[in-house]
Parts: sequence; C-alpha cells; structure tokens
Amino acid sequence: MGASEQENFDAYLAFAHRLADLSATAVMQYFRNLSRVEDKSSGGAYDPVTIADREAEQVIRAEVAQNWPDHDVRGEEFGDRSSGADYCWLVDPIDGTRPFIMGLPVWGTLIALTKNGVPLLGLMNQPFTGERYWSGRDGAFYRGPEGEKQIAARSCPQLGDAILSSTSPDLFETPDDKDRFDKLSEQVRMRWYGGDCYAYCLLAAGHIDLVVESGLSAHDIAPLIPIIKRAGGCITSWNGGKASDGGHAVACGDPALHEAVLKVLSG
Amino acid sequence: MGASEQENFDAYLAFAHRLADLSATAVMQYFRNLSRVEDKSSGGAYDPVTIADREAEQVIRAEVAQNWPDHDVRGEEFGDRSSGADYCWLVDPIDGTRPFIMGLPVWGTLIALTKNGVPLLGLMNQPFTGERYWSGRDGAFYRGPEGEKQIAARSCPQLGDAILSSTSPDLFETPDDKDRFDKLSEQVRMRWYGGDCYAYCLLAAGHIDLVVESGLSAHDIAPLIPIIKRAGGCITSWNGGKASDGGHAVACGDPALHEAVLKVLSG
Repeated sequence: MGASEQENFDAYLAFAHRLADLSATAVMQYFRNLSRVEDKSSGGAYDPVTIADREAEQVIRAEVAQNWPDHDVRGEEFGDRSSGADYCWLVDPIDGTRPFIMGLPVWGTLIALTKNGVPLLGLMNQPFTGERYWSGRDGAFYRGPEGEKQIAARSCPQLGDAILSSTSPDLFETPDDKDRFDKLSEQVRMRWYGGDCYAYCLLAAGHIDLVVESGLSAHDIAPLIPIIKRAGGCITSWNGGKASDGGHAVACGDPALHEAVLKVLSG
Repeated sequence: MGASEQENFDAYLAFAHRLADLSATAVMQYFRNLSRVEDKSSGGAYDPVTIADREAEQVIRAEVAQNWPDHDVRGEEFGDRSSGADYCWLVDPIDGTRPFIMGLPVWGTLIALTKNGVPLLGLMNQPFTGERYWSGRDGAFYRGPEGEKQIAARSCPQLGDAILSSTSPDLFETPDDKDRFDKLSEQVRMRWYGGDCYAYCLLAAGHIDLVVESGLSAHDIAPLIPIIKRAGGCITSWNGGKASDGGHAVACGDPALHEAVLKVLSG
C-alpha cells in the first residue's frame, strides 16, 4: 500500500466506524421494542424484515451519498445504487434479523468497502453488547467490554478438535447442502447453531474453529472476509473459490483445516 | 404469604442476587479466556465442562453453606448435599456451557430456591451483557442495559404466529422427541436454535412465544419456572405435568397456546 492509499484507507475506515455509530442509534431504538415485523418472502419461507433494518440502512445510504457521492452502495433492504464505480459500500443493517426480533444479542450491522469487487475493509457492530470487530491495515481488531485489542484466529489442525458453527439448519440453500454439512458435523468435536455474523467474528477472535453456511448474499459475507483473513483465518466458497459474492461460505480459523473441510463439503 | 414468610422471601431473594454477583466474578475471569475444556461424557456425546463451571458452583456452595447451613444444595457439577431439608438451592453455574466456550453471550447462571421440591424463586444472570432476570414476590423482573423493569410474557393466541425456540436439534433426548418438535415447528411462524436459559427469559419478557426442549436436568429448568409463571406464561412437561424435575419442558408465553402445543407434542 502506497502512502496515499494508506491515507485513503484510514479515511475509509474512520468513515466505516462513523456508519456503525450512526446505524447503532437507528437500530437500538427498536431492539426489544418492535411493534411489528413484516415478511418479505412473498409466500415462501418466512423472511422477516423490520423498520430497524430499513431505518439503519437509510441512515447509512444517506451518509455515503453525502460523503462519497462517487461510490456505489449495495444494501440488503434497498438494493443497489450502481454506477459501475470502483468503490462500493456493502451494507447489511441487521445481519441476524431473526435473533434481533427474538431479543437475542447475536446479530450485527455489517459494513464493507469493496474495490472492484474485492473487500478492502469490513466491520461488524453489535450495539447491544457494545462490541465491534473490524479489519485494519495490518490486522483485525475488537473493541468491547473487554477493551480494545488485536485479535487472532486460533490453531486447530485436527478436524476432530474443531468447534463448528452455522446459523441454522433451516437456512441451507438445498437439502444436499444440509447433508454435506451434517457429514462434516460428524467429524468435528461439536457443532452449534445460532451465530449469524457474530460467529464469524468469534472465529476471527479465536473462539470458534469453523463456520459453514450456504444461501448467503454478498452483504452477509463480504464485510466479514477481511476481518477473518487479517486475523489469520481463511474463507472461501465450498469449492475453494471466492466467498465474497455470497452463496456458499466456509471459514476456517486455522488454514491448515481448510483442505480437509473442503474435501468433506465437496462430497 | 404471611408477614414472616414475606420477610423470609425477601431475604432469600437478596441472597440469590448475592450468589449471582459472586458467581459472576468467578465465571467472567474465564469467559473467552479458557485454556482448556474437559469432556465429562465418558465416551458418549461431547459434554463440555470448564473450570468456570466448577469455580462458580464452588463459590455458590460455600456461600450457601455459610449462610443457610440447614438448606440443601444441588448443583450441576458437584451433585447433591442432601439432608432432606425443606429448602434446597438448585444451581447451574453455567447453563449453556457450549455457547460459553464459543464466546457467545447466550448462557447464564441459574439459581433457584425450592421448598419441598416447588420452586419458590428463580434467577438467571448473564454477566457479560450485564443482564439479570428474577422472580419477585409479585412478578418477574429484569435488570440490564435497558434499566430495571417488571416483565410480562406476550399474547400470542395463534400457533401460526408463534416464534419457537430450542437450544439445539442435537440435544433432544430421543429421535422421537426431535420428530415431535419438528412437527410442531411446521405449524409455527419461525423456529430458532441457540438460546439455552436466555431464550426462556426472553419468553418471559415477551419476545419469544414458545420454548420446547427435552433432556433437561432439574437445575436447568427449575430456576426459570417462577420467572416464566410470574411473567404470565406457563411451563409444564410435554404431557402437561410439572417441569421442575427436568426431562421435557414446554414454555408458552401465552397460556392460551398451551393446549394446542401439548396436542402436537403428545403426538
């Protein structure tokens, strides 16, 4: 990274933190305080969305438009503002709307900046617990009740020792995906459901070894990629390709696990 | 409740809060800071236990022995101190050891006082988020980042509108239990895994409508019963019997749902 690129990076990162602060205010007024939840599935599987998702995304969109009018924005609730710009802000105002509407604290606001489709920086903010994870220039970082610190994924070279996490058995894209996940589950020490973005961040912080999901959107996963990578982990699609476009994702805290996991997931 | 019983209740409740404060200090030094996790399953399904579980329970046992030497104690990690006393303190130092070892904030310390087997008062403490739920004489209460307040379960007379929670699909006692739970899941709006004691408290606070589990121990569930009941909800075993001994539990925020749910669960 050259000096001017570094300067830009620092400005973008500061701006991402500002977006997290602003969206937190918008979201928190509705946490455990919702009068209604809409279903955006149009008849398919229940897909809840709340006024909190919408208001938080609008706050972020307005702020990007004002500060970086040449950048694109892609968000979960209001789609793309796409002019083909190099830089694009990806936003998931509430990743984990289901736990959000249940009052569980394992959701987060996801923000990424991509350059030509590659995630430059990512941030996850959990305003109820007061926790934030982000990727800096030289590492991944955490701020929360335990203070601010650099984080690192942990070593776990044996699949049989791994703790595996996924958001829900009901969110795999196909029954075949679920079967592959179940096959992987048989080979790990423990599997656990219920994490959303929070689980990927705990992987980056060295508390979980594997997160495996499918049916993701780009805004669900792109913000988490630089956090995981700069913490020393790796993340790809189930066949080893890039995860940043969404679809299938497998995150390993220890890259030494990656090959063995892909072998199981690719059947 | 007579005047002297009221006085006793207040003393017991104050003591339960004191146990929660003391155990929080013991537990929090290990949260996201564990050097090892033991497996107490002796070859069966993985059943983790940590030094945090043990130290927290020891702190509580010592405090009970010093303050109420005539009371019995039953805990998850060190079994019973049973003299056949009327009063017994039931303790689960970390309900949700699995999320605890993963760094997720959805576990809690559970404390109940029973009189002749009937839960008199219950308390759940989540020290990372700074949240506490307990049953008082005249209601159920919450203290946390949102302040201190009385809580109430919510109305949800239609099964099709209900949000259903359970800790994990892997923790049902038998495949038949899992089948019944799946059948119930088909009739609700949404099901979600990953809550442990935290989900029962969110039910008492009006954010979740149903929690259904099996394979519970008395210390997993007895502390939650008075919280749920005094918030206006109901909780029984799957056949409508008492839930306080463990085994199968079904909690409904709206008692109007109870009959319909039992019908599905009893096949």
